[in-house]
Amino acid sequence: MAHPPALAGLLKQLARLPGVGPRSAQRVALALLAAPQKMAELASSLQHAQADLGSCATCGNIAARTEAEACVCEICADPRRDPYVLCVVESVADIWALEKGGHFKGRYHVLGGVVSALQGVGPDDLSLGLLEHRLRTATPEFAEIILALGASLEGQTTSHLVASLVQRAAPNALLSTLAKGMPVGASVDYLDEGTLGLALTYRQRL
Amino acid sequence: MAHPPALAGLLKQLARLPGVGPRSAQRVALALLAAPQKMAELASSLQHAQADLGSCATCGNIAARTEAEACVCEICADPRRDPYVLCVVESVADIWALEKGGHFKGRYHVLGGVVSALQGVGPDDLSLGLLEHRLRTATPEFAEIILALGASLEGQTTSHLVASLVQRAAPNALLSTLAKGMPVGASVDYLDEGTLGLALTYRQRL
Repeated sequence: MAHPPALAGLLKQLARLPGVGPRSAQRVALALLAAPQKMAELASSLQHAQADLGSCATCGNIAARTEAEACVCEICADPRRDPYVLCVVESVADIWALEKGGHFKGRYHVLGGVVSALQGVGPDDLSLGLLEHRLRTATPEFAEIILALGASLEGQTTSHLVASLVQRAAPNALLSTLAKGMPVGASVDYLDEGTLGLALTYRQRL
Repeated sequence: MAHPPALAGLLKQLARLPGVGPRSAQRVALALLAAPQKMAELASSLQHAQADLGSCATCGNIAARTEAEACVCEICADPRRDPYVLCVVESVADIWALEKGGHFKGRYHVLGGVVSALQGVGPDDLSLGLLEHRLRTATPEFAEIILALGASLEGQTTSHLVASLVQRAAPNALLSTLAKGMPVGASVDYLDEGTLGLALTYRQRL
C-alpha cells in the first residue's frame, strides 16, 4: 500500500531519528495525526530550537542565541562556577549527566566526539584547537583539568591526545581523570574482569 | 542546570511522543541540534502532514486532503478492491499490518479504538455510527464483515458490540473473525494455555 506523500515524508523523517525505527516511526506518526495540537507544538518547538539555540563559543555546550554574535552558555556565564577547574567531556549529554549529580562546580569543554578509526573521526573533528586556545588564554589560569571521557578504547585514546595537549598548553595545571572501579549498586560476581582489575589496582584505604 | 527555554520546550514535546522517554528525548534533541538540516526537514514534514492529511470520510483511514471537502483514502478510491468484503479494525496501524501481507483485498473500517472501562473509552468514542450508516447504505451490499480486532478482553468486548450492530444493520451479511491459534514460528511449549486451548478447539483437518 502506498502512503500519501505527506505521510511517507513524515515517516521517513521520524525513522531517521536515533532510537526510532520504522515501527516506532509509524506509532509516533499515528499518535501525532490523532492529536493535531501536539503535532503543531512539536513543529513549532523544532523551529524555535533551530532559531534560538547555538553552540557556546567558549565551551561548545548548547546555548541560547542572543543579540550578541557569540553565544555563551549558562554555565560559562555563571560567575559562581569555579573558574579554576575544567572538565573535558565528549558531548553535551555528558554535561547533562554530570550536572544531574551536582557534584561538579567548575567549567566544561565539549570535544564534540572521540577519535574513532571505525567511525572515521580524527583529531581534526574535535574542538581541540578551541581547547588549546582556551587553556593558553584563560584568566585566571586553570589549576586542574579533569578528563571525563568514556572508559572505552576510543575514550581512552582521546584522553591521551587531550592529555598531551594540556601538558603543552597548560603545563602548570594538574591533570586528572574520572576514577575507575565498581559502579554504585554493582555486585562483584557480575563485574567484568577489566573493571574488577581496575577496582583492585585503585583500591582505597578504609 | 536549567536548559535554555527553546531546548526545554523541544525536550518536553519530544518526551510526549509514544515510546520516547526523557532520555531518548535528550538523544533525539542532541542529534537534531547537531544536524540543522534534519531538524528543518522534520519540522516541515510535520507541517506538511498536518496540512495535507485527513481522515477518510468513508472508512477512517488516513487520506491525503484534496480540493474536495470529504477525504477519500487510497483503498476506498481503488476500484480493484473487493466491494463485498469489509474488514473492521481498531486503528490505521492495523490496516498497515494487514496490507503488508497483501492477503486481504476488500475494504476496511477503522473503529478508532476498542471499548475499555480502564481507559474510559465507551461505544460513543468509536466510529460505530459511521459503520452503521455505511452498512445500511452500501451499494452493493456487503456480503461479509470480518471482525479483525485484538484477541484481548477489550478487543473481544468490542467484537461483540460490532457483531450486534452488523446483525441489525446488515442482517444478510456473513460475520466472521480472525482465526485464533498458534502464530507462525511458535513452539508449543512456549504457548500460553489460552492460545493452546483455542488451537485445540479450532484444530484443522490435515
